[in-house]
Amino acid sequence: MKKISLLGATGSIGTQTIDLIRNQPSDYQLVACSAGTRVEELVQIILEFKPQVVSVAGKEEAEKLKTFALPSETSVYYGEEGLIEVATHHESDIVVNAVMGSVGLTPTMKAIQCGKTIALANKETLVTAGHIVMAEAKKYGVSILPVDSEHSAIYQCLNGENYQNINKLIITASGGSFRDLTRNQLTNVTIEDALNHPNWSMGAKITIDSASMMNKGLEVIEAHWLFNMPYDQIDVILHRESVIHSMVEFIDGSVMAQLGTPDMRVPIAYALNYPDRKPIQNHTFLDLIKFGRLHFEEMDLNRFRCLKYAYDAGKAGGSMPTVLNAANEIAVSAFLHKRASFLQIEELIENALENHSIISNPTLEEIQLIDEETRKYVSSLIK
Amino acid sequence: MKKISLLGATGSIGTQTIDLIRNQPSDYQLVACSAGTRVEELVQIILEFKPQVVSVAGKEEAEKLKTFALPSETSVYYGEEGLIEVATHHESDIVVNAVMGSVGLTPTMKAIQCGKTIALANKETLVTAGHIVMAEAKKYGVSILPVDSEHSAIYQCLNGENYQNINKLIITASGGSFRDLTRNQLTNVTIEDALNHPNWSMGAKITIDSASMMNKGLEVIEAHWLFNMPYDQIDVILHRESVIHSMVEFIDGSVMAQLGTPDMRVPIAYALNYPDRKPIQNHTFLDLIKFGRLHFEEMDLNRFRCLKYAYDAGKAGGSMPTVLNAANEIAVSAFLHKRASFLQIEELIENALENHSIISNPTLEEIQLIDEETRKYVSSLIK
Repeated sequence: MKKISLLGATGSIGTQTIDLIRNQPSDYQLVACSAGTRVEELVQIILEFKPQVVSVAGKEEAEKLKTFALPSETSVYYGEEGLIEVATHHESDIVVNAVMGSVGLTPTMKAIQCGKTIALANKETLVTAGHIVMAEAKKYGVSILPVDSEHSAIYQCLNGENYQNINKLIITASGGSFRDLTRNQLTNVTIEDALNHPNWSMGAKITIDSASMMNKGLEVIEAHWLFNMPYDQIDVILHRESVIHSMVEFIDGSVMAQLGTPDMRVPIAYALNYPDRKPIQNHTFLDLIKFGRLHFEEMDLNRFRCLKYAYDAGKAGGSMPTVLNAANEIAVSAFLHKRASFLQIEELIENALENHSIISNPTLEEIQLIDEETRKYVSSLIK
Repeated sequence: MKKISLLGATGSIGTQTIDLIRNQPSDYQLVACSAGTRVEELVQIILEFKPQVVSVAGKEEAEKLKTFALPSETSVYYGEEGLIEVATHHESDIVVNAVMGSVGLTPTMKAIQCGKTIALANKETLVTAGHIVMAEAKKYGVSILPVDSEHSAIYQCLNGENYQNINKLIITASGGSFRDLTRNQLTNVTIEDALNHPNWSMGAKITIDSASMMNKGLEVIEAHWLFNMPYDQIDVILHRESVIHSMVEFIDGSVMAQLGTPDMRVPIAYALNYPDRKPIQNHTFLDLIKFGRLHFEEMDLNRFRCLKYAYDAGKAGGSMPTVLNAANEIAVSAFLHKRASFLQIEELIENALENHSIISNPTLEEIQLIDEETRKYVSSLIK
């Protein structure tokens, strides 16, 4: 029986984690969870699983939550303090961090310090503070298990392997909604166009990041930290079908790959059960014959500039990935609110990176400061 | 430093094993080896590596070998006794069994009884006596490491995994020289046509077996024994490029695959270095972008009847695979000597299987007897 703290229970990853817990009551128990503002959805989860600790975005949501008839054993918290209560709950074995944005950072650090295994779906944790998080995980002997399909694939390819024998990581990219458009054709794309991802059903922010290839860029930086791999040993390859979720090439020429249908429950369950595996209810198994063909193309960094910026920011290191991530969040938000065009996302990020004076080994406080400053700066650029 | 006994040093696998030993003198040492009739080639190996024990096919070859100026430390043997001397040499850590045909069986059993790790390239060992060999390996706590690219791929996919979590093994088949021909078009194919394999450069027998799909059938039976897997959990899929060497599907829907260029030194080196990996000199690394596409098609058991016969013989079990293998060896030999047509290979095998009364749990002696009887019977059918 694994006891789970779930940060971000009502989001895309959170909902699927809940689905796994529901279907395997003898394997998993939800002891604590958080949500943002979706109070009604959280109430359903509380009534079903009776977690001991829950947390919501702010005081207002907490007051609203308390108007429902909650089980007597459930304590309600809110804000960062609440997230930390969920992440460090004394009974939990594993913390699934599926919140969006940099809010996931502090609870992850606290959970690590309590010796909890971390199942990490929150990109910002490693992108902005990879050097701090991985050092802390090492210090406390804690495993960081990736939940992204690409990093889970790499983790699975590395099962039983000596990391010294890695030649390179090969992250696959479907290419997103706009993979077949030229830069000229990107000028007037709409939000609706961008949200139409060919393979995966995900949240709005990550779907836009897939279209701009920033999602892949953030994944490259995550992979750098998770697998302690230099950037010139991380390749990105365009693979339209998203059947191969990622690969590892070893020094002997062997390439290990993990394949599957687009079901995020697979990487979530892998993290929950690692190193074991469990069946997943109603999972659609891969049928390679139905696909018939898998395609592989070179990734064009001139076409997909966000990926280039991510490599640049990652190689520059220090505070640069924090700027990349914060600028991207503001730019994508502006696009989703029709205050910026799709190509302006790139421009805003490029501007923010050029404007930043790098700090080589930033503390958590410096990261948070730079994050805020970058958001203000990029917001000021948007009319 | 791994000390190696090599059975079949002058064949295709043997030569590539020698190549690996030559290029990594600090990792490998050849302490014993055998050849059949290629005495001059063996002399070169003896002069270069100074093994303590060597063996050749018969007395005649042994006499011929002794006419060369051999190193004083090298003892010469011949016949089955010689193979056993090589396989059980007290200094060797690992026995690479790369001989052709059922002659590899007894030396493998003796090596297992001496506690040697077995790197197995000899199909007949498992096809004809899988139940005996695997039981003996278990009894002596000996690892059987596959050298076939497909089984090595599966072994690599299973690294760090719990075998209980396997859903099925997926063996890939290039389809061989005749994959695009109909059965009608197979009527008049020649030896030269058959020897023109699209992806791999191998010996004549195995290349014909690839064209008839019997090679894949023997691999299915091998996989059954190596991985203790029921036949209905072993799939064969047509994959023209031979880039994915084989796959494993797990209960959670994850499919692990091993990919690479067609270089048999990779699986040989994997077996030699397991669970570590070592670089391979002048290895051409896989370039998926150069391929662009990978194709997957269903395997048609009506078109490729030898594969069907192999499944049938495997499922029937007992002595049936011995009949399958012996009948195939005689039939392929007849084809290579222009005494049978390509399609007659199938007919001869079908006839032999139908003619055989199964023995459910044959001893080694019974296997050898059935092997001989089948060869006589099939030979008698050939004009």
